[in-house]
Amino acid sequence: MRIEAVDFFYLAMPQVTTAADGSQDALVVRVSAGGLTGWGECEASPLVSMAAFVTPMSHGACRPVSASVLGHEVNGPDDIRAMAARIAYDSMDLLQAPHTWSGIEMALWDLLGRARGEPAWRLLGQAQAFPKTPYASVLFGADAQETLQRARAIRAQGFRAAKFGWAPFGDSLQGDEDQLAAAREGLGADGILLIDAGQIFGADVEAAAQRLPAMERARVTWFEEPFAAGALSAYAALAARSGSVGVAGGEAAHDRDMALHLIDHGAVRFIQIDCGRIGGLGPAREVAQYAAARGVTYVNHTFTSNLALSASLQPYVGLEDHRICEYPTGLSALAQELTVTRIAPDANGLIHAPDAPGLGVEVNEATLERYRVPVEIRVGGRVILSA
Amino acid sequence: MRIEAVDFFYLAMPQVTTAADGSQDALVVRVSAGGLTGWGECEASPLVSMAAFVTPMSHGACRPVSASVLGHEVNGPDDIRAMAARIAYDSMDLLQAPHTWSGIEMALWDLLGRARGEPAWRLLGQAQAFPKTPYASVLFGADAQETLQRARAIRAQGFRAAKFGWAPFGDSLQGDEDQLAAAREGLGADGILLIDAGQIFGADVEAAAQRLPAMERARVTWFEEPFAAGALSAYAALAARSGSVGVAGGEAAHDRDMALHLIDHGAVRFIQIDCGRIGGLGPAREVAQYAAARGVTYVNHTFTSNLALSASLQPYVGLEDHRICEYPTGLSALAQELTVTRIAPDANGLIHAPDAPGLGVEVNEATLERYRVPVEIRVGGRVILSA
Repeated sequence: MRIEAVDFFYLAMPQVTTAADGSQDALVVRVSAGGLTGWGECEASPLVSMAAFVTPMSHGACRPVSASVLGHEVNGPDDIRAMAARIAYDSMDLLQAPHTWSGIEMALWDLLGRARGEPAWRLLGQAQAFPKTPYASVLFGADAQETLQRARAIRAQGFRAAKFGWAPFGDSLQGDEDQLAAAREGLGADGILLIDAGQIFGADVEAAAQRLPAMERARVTWFEEPFAAGALSAYAALAARSGSVGVAGGEAAHDRDMALHLIDHGAVRFIQIDCGRIGGLGPAREVAQYAAARGVTYVNHTFTSNLALSASLQPYVGLEDHRICEYPTGLSALAQELTVTRIAPDANGLIHAPDAPGLGVEVNEATLERYRVPVEIRVGGRVILSA
Repeated sequence: MRIEAVDFFYLAMPQVTTAADGSQDALVVRVSAGGLTGWGECEASPLVSMAAFVTPMSHGACRPVSASVLGHEVNGPDDIRAMAARIAYDSMDLLQAPHTWSGIEMALWDLLGRARGEPAWRLLGQAQAFPKTPYASVLFGADAQETLQRARAIRAQGFRAAKFGWAPFGDSLQGDEDQLAAAREGLGADGILLIDAGQIFGADVEAAAQRLPAMERARVTWFEEPFAAGALSAYAALAARSGSVGVAGGEAAHDRDMALHLIDHGAVRFIQIDCGRIGGLGPAREVAQYAAARGVTYVNHTFTSNLALSASLQPYVGLEDHRICEYPTGLSALAQELTVTRIAPDANGLIHAPDAPGLGVEVNEATLERYRVPVEIRVGGRVILSA
């Protein structure tokens, strides 16, 4: 099947705020080949990822992503891997390329799965898909009282696990201690409590470590992204003193190697991969296998639509012991409406990857129109993108 | 001084080819503040870096680079560092951001230097600037004979050091052995010979190691980028067996941490930093100090104009023992004509960073017009960039 077209849909809510809510916009990708279509989603900054697809070549090692995709054949998983390798080499100086490619790569697995009547996770080499325990992923309340209410609401919805993240966490030690206690109280004694610091401590190991006693008291399972994504030695230093609290990270990894470094040199206990950034399902699957072999738990990272959620599950549904999955709640209207298919907890509160071809998610094309942000890019007087 | 404007100039040669010649296009940046201007240059993919400046915000941790720059004050080095930290946090999910910021950051040091009448290297904390031994940086010939001629020509021009890089290196062991012998022969017995593999071996340590005996015979000083930028364990494995040949790398680092990892976990003997990618002079200076403290030699990486060359020298001219510098030859006409100022070897064949305020380089504004590629970006029906 020859790749005939890659179409981008830049969607956004009418108002985009500085909240850490990644579902306020979306870049949906449709790939057409052999009379079939596949769908994927890139994480963040739609305009820049679109530009990376169409940008004029700077030189041989800085070609647009399109050069490695359009007109090429996709007849099996190896073709997708070959495309990934070509982009890594021919677009090595185009920093944004992995984010652009991520959505295309997902769409290619979706398309290939539809062609073969197989779910993507099976094409990735997994014989069976195991259910996951979803954690409701929410932001901290503005104060401990609000967090308490959010935690209670999550428990009332039937979730056994919840993650609270971002500001105001990190503002003050006392404030954080109150937030942690409130989250535990609201979630109940048996809930799985996860904390996401959103890189707020930079590389300040002591500042992060000050929160550990309160985390141990609140029986926090993981302490996510205490530091900037590349602060490996800070990660390792915190991990050496974090006791029962596992250090987690990895969402920023834009290639497989970055995730491996966080395992090898950052000593994380949980590796969190966003398929919309790391280059799609292929490298994510490699990270999952690498992690599993080293006793590190793989977790999906996703905070947008159910299309991205399905993609994020595909690389590790075959790993029975890696039980937790991120399940975004409180998504924007556009993210909720993007898919006809809804991935919801079953009667036991567990999440299943769709048992349908490809990513198993039907996109709601009316949503693509409703929230669409038109983009036109002209270079040298010529329109090189109109979407 | 309040930053009033950041203007981008996308320049390109009439024909851009797949050669590994990074001077075929350029993204020049002009920053205006307090009635002064400063100039910088971003490495590669001008359109995408421009888009990262103006892109609409996706969420609080994915803001455009402009949000951290326009309207902010720049009165001293700490203001530049604060801006860098703000971008690292507020644009953490915008992958292209470091490349965009790199040119702006250079321009800010240039502007600040002009305001204070001081060269940028002094503002970076260096008391004295030491001369460097330039290496002529060229691509391999198509065969050994052509490489021999290039090496002889370089010696005839008075260079004591030369670097040969990229294809066809890596195509065959015998071909590479011939190329290495030819380069040594042409350069003469006393020349410093450097080899750049352009990541051709991916993560294949054995393939790279097969070239080591011929490199030792040709007395190669460094073996640059044998592997993909993030293949740290491959770097370390090769370094453990490379004998008299030092492994070099780092040009792809888009933040300080990535360069540090190559030192700490990749065991490179030479760390090569491109100020047009790593976020400008500030993080490059930090890498230089980190390297110097660990016995690793810092080297600039640059393959575009003399503006970028000056910027690339600023972070380490104070390190007397780090003697080698990249000095691109065979640049495209646009890169040659971009600056009125020419940085050329002195009577002893040594290169000096300009002893003039800021980067000490005067941009030829006629060149900005001659090679200009107009860009217009419309989002939601509104023109957000016209340059």
